[in-house]
Amino acid sequence: MEIREVFARNLRTARLAKGLSQEELAHRADIDRTYISSLERGVYNASIDVVDRLAKALEIEVAELLSRKKSGTIKRH
Amino acid sequence: MEIREVFARNLRTARLAKGLSQEELAHRADIDRTYISSLERGVYNASIDVVDRLAKALEIEVAELLSRKKSGTIKRH
Repeated sequence: MEIREVFARNLRTARLAKGLSQEELAHRADIDRTYISSLERGVYNASIDVVDRLAKALEIEVAELLSRKKSGTIKRH
Repeated sequence: MEIREVFARNLRTARLAKGLSQEELAHRADIDRTYISSLERGVYNASIDVVDRLAKALEIEVAELLSRKKSGTIKRH
């Protein structure tokens, strides 16, 4: 699976696990909502800075957003 | 620590653990050597595609290149 698809799947899973809408996540991460929607569809080749901001907004590790291991639960910390 | 610095440190650690020069890693990952040198100095905001190609060339998980946990040994797989 392409890393963009891995990231798209993990981003969506983590956002839903947090009970956030794309709008709310966009606001927290100070990223445009339409960009988040595109990332969740694997459209863009995100930079590590963007991945880092999203991980912080979701209160998870950057590594978890790019892990190929399908995790039922995203580790909290 | 900024994610670029985390990535720079992990990339260098993994490359050295593999016993590869920047030149050899550049050849394996089909990335310009000077770009790898810049990444190891935290100069650029790498994309997840580039991080993925480097992880494959180093035979490690993408997540390991972006993990903030200082790992003495990089897990092989």
